[in-house]
Amino acid sequence: MPGTIDLTFALEMIGTVAFALSGAMVAIQKRLDLLGILVLGITTAVGGGMIRDLIIGIHPPMMFVKPVYVVVSAIFILILFLIIKVNHSSPKFLESALYETLFNLMDAIGLGVFTVVGVNSVMNNDMNHMLFLKIFLGVITGVGGGLIRDMMANETPGILRKHVYACASIAGAVCYIILYDWLRSGTAMVLSVILVVVIRVLAKHYEWNLPKAL
Amino acid sequence: MPGTIDLTFALEMIGTVAFALSGAMVAIQKRLDLLGILVLGITTAVGGGMIRDLIIGIHPPMMFVKPVYVVVSAIFILILFLIIKVNHSSPKFLESALYETLFNLMDAIGLGVFTVVGVNSVMNNDMNHMLFLKIFLGVITGVGGGLIRDMMANETPGILRKHVYACASIAGAVCYIILYDWLRSGTAMVLSVILVVVIRVLAKHYEWNLPKAL
Amino acid sequence: MPGTIDLTFALEMIGTVAFALSGAMVAIQKRLDLLGILVLGITTAVGGGMIRDLIIGIHPPMMFVKPVYVVVSAIFILILFLIIKVNHSSPKFLESALYETLFNLMDAIGLGVFTVVGVNSVMNNDMNHMLFLKIFLGVITGVGGGLIRDMMANETPGILRKHVYACASIAGAVCYIILYDWLRSGTAMVLSVILVVVIRVLAKHYEWNLPKAL
Repeated sequence: MPGTIDLTFALEMIGTVAFALSGAMVAIQKRLDLLGILVLGITTAVGGGMIRDLIIGIHPPMMFVKPVYVVVSAIFILILFLIIKVNHSSPKFLESALYETLFNLMDAIGLGVFTVVGVNSVMNNDMNHMLFLKIFLGVITGVGGGLIRDMMANETPGILRKHVYACASIAGAVCYIILYDWLRSGTAMVLSVILVVVIRVLAKHYEWNLPKAL
Repeated sequence: MPGTIDLTFALEMIGTVAFALSGAMVAIQKRLDLLGILVLGITTAVGGGMIRDLIIGIHPPMMFVKPVYVVVSAIFILILFLIIKVNHSSPKFLESALYETLFNLMDAIGLGVFTVVGVNSVMNNDMNHMLFLKIFLGVITGVGGGLIRDMMANETPGILRKHVYACASIAGAVCYIILYDWLRSGTAMVLSVILVVVIRVLAKHYEWNLPKAL
Repeated sequence: MPGTIDLTFALEMIGTVAFALSGAMVAIQKRLDLLGILVLGITTAVGGGMIRDLIIGIHPPMMFVKPVYVVVSAIFILILFLIIKVNHSSPKFLESALYETLFNLMDAIGLGVFTVVGVNSVMNNDMNHMLFLKIFLGVITGVGGGLIRDMMANETPGILRKHVYACASIAGAVCYIILYDWLRSGTAMVLSVILVVVIRVLAKHYEWNLPKAL
């Protein structure tokens, strides 16, 4: 279905931009210069897809072949940079609740989109029957970009410490696999992405966490 | 030999559980919640094998195809979690010498098993004649899980700072390659794993270190 | 052209030694023992090439098959170790401007060589027409070793914070691609490496940085 392919691409672009902005926001908070902001943003945006392609054996990974992911990431990072620069935002803005809420939203959208995109990439090929692979690949694709971002920025990865981060990704992957058989693929994708974002936003708001050992 | 395959699988399970527990123990020490404990434990358990499969070109890596590694890891991590929870262990326990000794033992078993498993995975195919590859692949498979664990937990990797960590892995790989021609494969595996564990336990006890530059 | 292949290999050796020494210098600064120094140095030296091979689908990566990279790295690291040891250098030397200048030079040479080597590895095969891939692959190969070094040593990667680090690599890759059509391949390689080193040395001296957001 060409419609599905277009929607997949549109979703990928949304996730790419969201993750690029989340990486740039971390870099800005770390007081890196424009180059560091671009590098961390782009790495976050393309990291998950690169890991996915290495895992399922696509050489070279898609984002090396199609420049659109890197170019779109760079454009949106530059726009964010200019907005903050032109507004003469106070450094306090970087510590504000609004900044953190925006960051979490970008991160959640990236997580949701890439989880679904990851599942989708083995949906119609000969690995389709492997249920575990589909879920695991979706989760790795979803969390990969943020994991690389946090490790490069020298922070404990969100996947380890943030309210039900990996659970949201697993829920999105399972939701997509179930809905895929019932709805058109495009609707199933969008609903699954929304589920992940809603879980993450609620989890942050209500500080959902699993119990600790001690 | 079916016996060898069964033993390889049994060893893999032992190494998987040991590394899963080592990752979970680090996460518990870092006061992560149950989700963080599961993620770090499972990542440690399957990380080395994933790196190995990416290096020798198995797509997708085995642990994406066979859920048993992740499932067994999760079960043992949950058991550890419950034991600590039910015992109302004091937080001091996490800093105790016993905790550290147990952690080092789990880490040593994982290191030994995955070193041997890594060597073994190219033992009977067309890469068998490459001696250097066999040793290097064994070492990377052995240290990979712990390396990912330490990097995600934001600690200097044990392979850089722990008493003769990489040496133990090299010794195990070489030992297995030599014994393989003399003994049955299963015996050679078990002896090599024991060698690695003994070296690591002695190295920690007697604080074996190589000289420093300054 | 055998001459070109020989020159490529000679350049690779120079870059390998430079990156090995840069990794060893970080490890010495971190007061690691000889084993940690060897591990970090060798990882830095072979890391970029390993990432490149995984990306373009060479299994197993070259440095697992040809021991020369690891062996040469180890020899030069041991020589560095002995020089510092024999000279009874004062610990202050490790914080000195000379040490940092030498480190930056080694890092710049490694960056330049591996950028060019990365571009070169797809110069004459069926991926040659993909301009974006060539540049991106060059940059990843160039920065990969240093990135792994900094992440293992628990430091914010130089690529994020150092004066125009990634820009120097991009400039080198573009320069090589342009010169390749005009000059003999060997001359183009050497000139491009020199360009990267000069940019990095000047950037450090004059503290070139891109603007910050705040």
